[in-house]
Amino acid sequence: MTEITIMNGVNTEKLFGTIDAIKEMPSLAKFNFRATNKWINGGHNRSTIKDFYGAGQEDTSRKIPFVVDNDEPAVLLGEDKGANPVEYLLHGLAGCLTSSLVYHAAAQGVKLDEVESTLDGDIDLRGLLNFPENIPSGYQNIRVTFRIKSEAPREKIEELCRLAKKVSPVCNSLTQGVAVEVKLADAATKSA
Amino acid sequence: MTEITIMNGVNTEKLFGTIDAIKEMPSLAKFNFRATNKWINGGHNRSTIKDFYGAGQEDTSRKIPFVVDNDEPAVLLGEDKGANPVEYLLHGLAGCLTSSLVYHAAAQGVKLDEVESTLDGDIDLRGLLNFPENIPSGYQNIRVTFRIKSEAPREKIEELCRLAKKVSPVCNSLTQGVAVEVKLADAATKSA
Repeated sequence: MTEITIMNGVNTEKLFGTIDAIKEMPSLAKFNFRATNKWINGGHNRSTIKDFYGAGQEDTSRKIPFVVDNDEPAVLLGEDKGANPVEYLLHGLAGCLTSSLVYHAAAQGVKLDEVESTLDGDIDLRGLLNFPENIPSGYQNIRVTFRIKSEAPREKIEELCRLAKKVSPVCNSLTQGVAVEVKLADAATKSA
Repeated sequence: MTEITIMNGVNTEKLFGTIDAIKEMPSLAKFNFRATNKWINGGHNRSTIKDFYGAGQEDTSRKIPFVVDNDEPAVLLGEDKGANPVEYLLHGLAGCLTSSLVYHAAAQGVKLDEVESTLDGDIDLRGLLNFPENIPSGYQNIRVTFRIKSEAPREKIEELCRLAKKVSPVCNSLTQGVAVEVKLADAATKSA
């Protein structure tokens, strides 16, 4: 076997095998991702990420959880013990667009040498303060600029950027919107 | 001065001062958050988060950047060197809802003893694979359940949960949607 099965760090043999398996059994594509979070103080809180469901079963490959802290910088009354939540949103978007681009490039046999991106977005904090009440609190816009080194034609790289924007789960969640249900636990609540 | 100015770890004197300043000069509420990301290999990439604009100036309080890695678990062809992007999205959402709730509780004089949350969301990976082409790639839904310990009446805590959902920038970005511009750098592109 002289066939190259690794492209852009992605095992394309496994990738095509996964695609074939999902074509035969679409339920294998159903994933459920999770996080738990505990408030520490002020704007400082900590998430624990470990288990998820996917490919038809509970994943047990992670032996230790990922632990990540949110905080706010001094100007937002925090102690800066971690990036803040809206910055983590940009981190997730950057990673998701990049991986989507890298995996699809691998599937198409397009070798990438370097992929870098810069992201920024505008927020009007009056929305968070709820004064005045009609100001949206979320990002007004998010700009992502990729710098990509590859021997592939620029047109192909531009096509991959468009595809990444379309298929990236984080990007799609942001552009299409997601129904978010926020509830206070009933029996389990500790509230008096 | 015997007035208590710290509630839930939030300096309410500074909080009310910030609110008053923004009421006088709304432009102080304009923030621009940023992240840069560099692909490492396969599903592994790294974000750097440091500078932002807000309160009328470039923030210079952070001396060293926050560095965070995305990767994918083995079942998604990664090496699990970090949580994945859709998990970081849940982390940001958890932190943003929690801080929004904690800050508004502080502003209302509601003391919180404990705040914990569990989040999960469903994704159909066929959207990411782009096969079939009509499957949305993003979260189909996200569920957030808070467990809160406080001596305040449950009705007040429920009200704060509703307020947090409304004013949280990450939650609002997800529920209302955001225009995301993805472009390939022109002159700066390294693509052949």
